[in-house]
Amino acid sequence: MASNTGLIMLRTMPFDALLNAFTSSDPTPGGGSASALAGAVGVSLLAMVAGLPKTRHGSDDDRQALDAARVVLVELRDQLAGLVDRDTEAYDQVTAAFRLPKGSDPEKAARSAAIQAALRAATGTPLAVMRACAEATHLGDTVAERGNPSASSDVQVGLELVVAGLRGAKLNVEINLGSVKDAAFVEGAAADVERLLAEAEAAAARARGRLA
Amino acid sequence: MASNTGLIMLRTMPFDALLNAFTSSDPTPGGGSASALAGAVGVSLLAMVAGLPKTRHGSDDDRQALDAARVVLVELRDQLAGLVDRDTEAYDQVTAAFRLPKGSDPEKAARSAAIQAALRAATGTPLAVMRACAEATHLGDTVAERGNPSASSDVQVGLELVVAGLRGAKLNVEINLGSVKDAAFVEGAAADVERLLAEAEAAAARARGRLA
Repeated sequence: MASNTGLIMLRTMPFDALLNAFTSSDPTPGGGSASALAGAVGVSLLAMVAGLPKTRHGSDDDRQALDAARVVLVELRDQLAGLVDRDTEAYDQVTAAFRLPKGSDPEKAARSAAIQAALRAATGTPLAVMRACAEATHLGDTVAERGNPSASSDVQVGLELVVAGLRGAKLNVEINLGSVKDAAFVEGAAADVERLLAEAEAAAARARGRLA
Repeated sequence: MASNTGLIMLRTMPFDALLNAFTSSDPTPGGGSASALAGAVGVSLLAMVAGLPKTRHGSDDDRQALDAARVVLVELRDQLAGLVDRDTEAYDQVTAAFRLPKGSDPEKAARSAAIQAALRAATGTPLAVMRACAEATHLGDTVAERGNPSASSDVQVGLELVVAGLRGAKLNVEINLGSVKDAAFVEGAAADVERLLAEAEAAAARARGRLA
């Protein structure tokens, strides 16, 4: 659906057309883009609550903390929206590398190098989704602590979607890592994945505890 | 952002404009619409895998089961896309009922009745999201059992998003139920919520077990 020329941008498509693109049996967009999308929507809800005029304690501290959180949340939302497209492009690059000629030994070597480079890039995209989602859960904790309690279900839904986006991205890191041959890269990425998941789940649990 | 005249349809908005709508400090769209949206994207991924030419065992049974699942998944996706808008409309109706005049006793009674009717409708919308997501997890189990194993991460991400949508919808049922005075309605809806959550989590766990 989305080509690797980047001419069709998923982030500007009407939502119902985007659903059709996910539903189509073309390989992209797939789970990686969907994870970034879910994260972007969750982060938007957190930013919404951070922007409400009313805060939990009505204090200047609340206002300043929420205003600062909102600025970063809007940046993370835009990063995640960009990653919806980037994940699809990265996947298309992997597919393109697999289609390179493999008649001669130099061709085989060039193809293998291109596949490995494309796989590392395709791992980096969902890792970036995980990083953005993990940072959003920390800010979500601030929003839970200081935001308008009337909007607490919006904060909780926001956290659900951000954590679902992060878990979905984790699956996409892991599936690509399985084919990467650079052991140091694999080890580093696998460690990042576990750290980001643990960090995000702890922050989300803390935030939910404040809202319960 | 979305008015209760229904003139602005969220489901046809460009995705980046939809993110702006969720980010804006207007009360709608909020967590209810976001939950329906996450469910719709998750269901789309499940439908995508059901539509892939290759199946797990390459059998006619696989093909027939997946084709049947895909038809229903596409219907559920469209239901959920419609519920993105319906949730926002239902919330706007609650807000409108609260703004009714309350000068005289008849006005107070009419306002109270309108608020209660709007709250019941606003409960029904996320309940419908939960129902659609729960049904999708059962079909997701079929897709996990019979779909192309190369797409297993798409199935898992689909399940993550569908379950996140269902949990988000549960929060929205509960927040509205808290203000509904009809005890029989509250009891029935609360029972539905627990049953749908348990059903969906069991089906999603079964599906994940097949993919692990």
